[in-house]
Amino acid sequence: MEEMKKRVFEANMSLFHRGLIVLTWGNVSEIDREHGYIAIKPSGIPYEKMTEDDIVIVDLFGNIVEGELRPSSDLPTHIELYKTFDNIGGVCHTHSRWATVFAQAALPLPPLGTTHADTFYGEIPITRKLTPEEIAGDYEKETGKVITEAFEGLDPLSIPAALVASHGPFTWGKNAKKAVENAIILEEVAFMAWHTLGIAPNTVIQDELLDKHYLRKHGNNAYYGQTGI
Amino acid sequence: MEEMKKRVFEANMSLFHRGLIVLTWGNVSEIDREHGYIAIKPSGIPYEKMTEDDIVIVDLFGNIVEGELRPSSDLPTHIELYKTFDNIGGVCHTHSRWATVFAQAALPLPPLGTTHADTFYGEIPITRKLTPEEIAGDYEKETGKVITEAFEGLDPLSIPAALVASHGPFTWGKNAKKAVENAIILEEVAFMAWHTLGIAPNTVIQDELLDKHYLRKHGNNAYYGQTGI
Amino acid sequence: MEEMKKRVFEANMSLFHRGLIVLTWGNVSEIDREHGYIAIKPSGIPYEKMTEDDIVIVDLFGNIVEGELRPSSDLPTHIELYKTFDNIGGVCHTHSRWATVFAQAALPLPPLGTTHADTFYGEIPITRKLTPEEIAGDYEKETGKVITEAFEGLDPLSIPAALVASHGPFTWGKNAKKAVENAIILEEVAFMAWHTLGIAPNTVIQDELLDKHYLRKHGNNAYYGQTGI
Amino acid sequence: MEEMKKRVFEANMSLFHRGLIVLTWGNVSEIDREHGYIAIKPSGIPYEKMTEDDIVIVDLFGNIVEGELRPSSDLPTHIELYKTFDNIGGVCHTHSRWATVFAQAALPLPPLGTTHADTFYGEIPITRKLTPEEIAGDYEKETGKVITEAFEGLDPLSIPAALVASHGPFTWGKNAKKAVENAIILEEVAFMAWHTLGIAPNTVIQDELLDKHYLRKHGNNAYYGQTGI
Repeated sequence: MEEMKKRVFEANMSLFHRGLIVLTWGNVSEIDREHGYIAIKPSGIPYEKMTEDDIVIVDLFGNIVEGELRPSSDLPTHIELYKTFDNIGGVCHTHSRWATVFAQAALPLPPLGTTHADTFYGEIPITRKLTPEEIAGDYEKETGKVITEAFEGLDPLSIPAALVASHGPFTWGKNAKKAVENAIILEEVAFMAWHTLGIAPNTVIQDELLDKHYLRKHGNNAYYGQTGI
Repeated sequence: MEEMKKRVFEANMSLFHRGLIVLTWGNVSEIDREHGYIAIKPSGIPYEKMTEDDIVIVDLFGNIVEGELRPSSDLPTHIELYKTFDNIGGVCHTHSRWATVFAQAALPLPPLGTTHADTFYGEIPITRKLTPEEIAGDYEKETGKVITEAFEGLDPLSIPAALVASHGPFTWGKNAKKAVENAIILEEVAFMAWHTLGIAPNTVIQDELLDKHYLRKHGNNAYYGQTGI
Repeated sequence: MEEMKKRVFEANMSLFHRGLIVLTWGNVSEIDREHGYIAIKPSGIPYEKMTEDDIVIVDLFGNIVEGELRPSSDLPTHIELYKTFDNIGGVCHTHSRWATVFAQAALPLPPLGTTHADTFYGEIPITRKLTPEEIAGDYEKETGKVITEAFEGLDPLSIPAALVASHGPFTWGKNAKKAVENAIILEEVAFMAWHTLGIAPNTVIQDELLDKHYLRKHGNNAYYGQTGI
Repeated sequence: MEEMKKRVFEANMSLFHRGLIVLTWGNVSEIDREHGYIAIKPSGIPYEKMTEDDIVIVDLFGNIVEGELRPSSDLPTHIELYKTFDNIGGVCHTHSRWATVFAQAALPLPPLGTTHADTFYGEIPITRKLTPEEIAGDYEKETGKVITEAFEGLDPLSIPAALVASHGPFTWGKNAKKAVENAIILEEVAFMAWHTLGIAPNTVIQDELLDKHYLRKHGNNAYYGQTGI
């Protein structure tokens, strides 16, 4: 459990050091599926002052197992994602500039080049807007539900990101570190897509190139990187 | 009084360290309502050389109570805001890039997502342009007046920012630190709004979502952050 | 002469540290009008390795008075500006991103707000394009001439910048330090103008506001900053 | 060979320190034409952890001559460029933001000003898209081939960059250091072109100015920089 807290602390801090965070915004969590525990950033704590001990451990009902502070107010969204996407191990939420622009515009992020294809195997979905009833109800949980609804028929690990309409991005991955990495990449491809569409509105990537780049980095026939690293 | 000077010094420097300042631009003040004193940055002093002792203390008529240097030339605007907005404790003025773009364009900043709604409970007003007489008269005081005019019927603490047409942003808050924080957030939401409108010109946020996000961070039923922090 | 070299070295380095320089681009000079000497950056030397001793001293004919290295290839442009603008003491040339965009677009930079008016008393002129003969001839000198041609009837110290069509900005001031400061401000106002025109194409500043902001910082009735600093 | 590894290591790291790299993206190589050896970055290694010893030496068939790690997966593209462009000594590949935007848009980068002309003697070519057969075949080698195809009739050292459609930029030069320098300059001119075309869509540079700027820095009559540096 101490190691998981350490990993989650470091994942949160790396998000901050990469410049994707303003003030106290953003949160990263990781799940221990064996014991049913989630480690997550506390709510509203400045990154400059956060320590490893501030990371909160909760169970899958959101009850605090360890920690003095309140967990991130977005915890119910994380829980919903962990429950429905059973192959993911870490979740990350930011208000990073370029991804949030697409989320606010309520537009999906289309694959326009190999930078996108290297990590995201297709268009990054935009959720539908929540109904007034969902907003008035268990809002953060419903936010998780519109994300999973947008992934019906999709493998969440093949497209490890979603844009929540009017809000911002959620990303995930095998663990907290990978969720943060996907948030960084999402920001790059959102930047590139915004400017590509500005000078070439009808851009699409060829299906064959999307396949090629995704599959040279992921799956059984991947040949990018080092074996066993 | 020394503590207020220290807080105002630190608030000014944090503005500088966040990259919202070019050269000597920008100024932050705080008011001590009990004694009727205002602490404010001196005019035209480089941030790199400014010390705590350079902060000027003035009364509500702009008379210097303590300090060797001239106060910021924008002091009369600050005084006007403190006089009319009786629930604010700090004021901040910058020429930060994205907020100034909206100010120059003479456009209000519409709420387009939850990043905006978390801090600003609605559209951030743009002032009307000053008349030639107002510009020729007590210009800095008149600048304060067009801001307060734009807030008729609005609670300044619920929308702690204004865009002065052809000029730039003023923000405020409970104290100097909060005024600076709101300037940082304003810059983020101005960036996001500019680019959102570029790809989705008719974007609006749902009223229910604006309420939800503002009220989960502010007021009696807020549940974001830590109790008592 | 050593002091002038030191000032010119520091002005060049401050340009670099402000992020307005890529690789070896850009150059700053200062003139000693009493002796007819100009101190200028050497050509093509990396900023990371430049020392005070690398600064070259030349006379008004471009002959080297002191120094081992070749002066900047843009020296004849600087000389032309010093000869025609007899009230300036420093010149700065960069390829800074936003100002260069307007220069490439062959568009003047209109005054759209008080950030512009605080330093530039009107539109920043764009030069005409050089003729093939001028390009084939004494190119760098002709570059200076199209700048001074664009300032006929204008006071160069009131609008201390020009955009050379298809090329980039030149700025100047009372000394090298002020020339660099004006380059920094030019970059800010070019950024703001580009984005303001993107959302409000017909923006203009009121004449009265342009007057007010320029004159509160410059001239006999200026009241910005500290007396005697 | 140790010196070449050192140069390639430093070229890769300088790319990273200039901010052109995200995560493990990008790779730089250099060729020793006498012995037929290429030194290249290993695949998928974080820049923060890379050491000089991680640089891989391969021959022109891609066989590892020295090193424990797999070479960059883009090695076959580098080899193809070295084989066809017999006057180049270093190759650099990035996914830098602005150049990638043009690559994704499948647009060439036109020369719009002297910043471009100082380094690139004309338009930077965009490759055609690869066919499905080429993508399914020896993909990285075919990537090199569409680049060299786009340079038929052009001197690669006069225009030391290409944009691969849907992918990103490759740059080259006399050695690894120059290839990186050209990647940095490409990023600047892509930024400037994007924004210039946004406010002045029909911009072109005069042929005479393109000649003048390219030739004052390159070739027998160059007079920019220092002799023998």
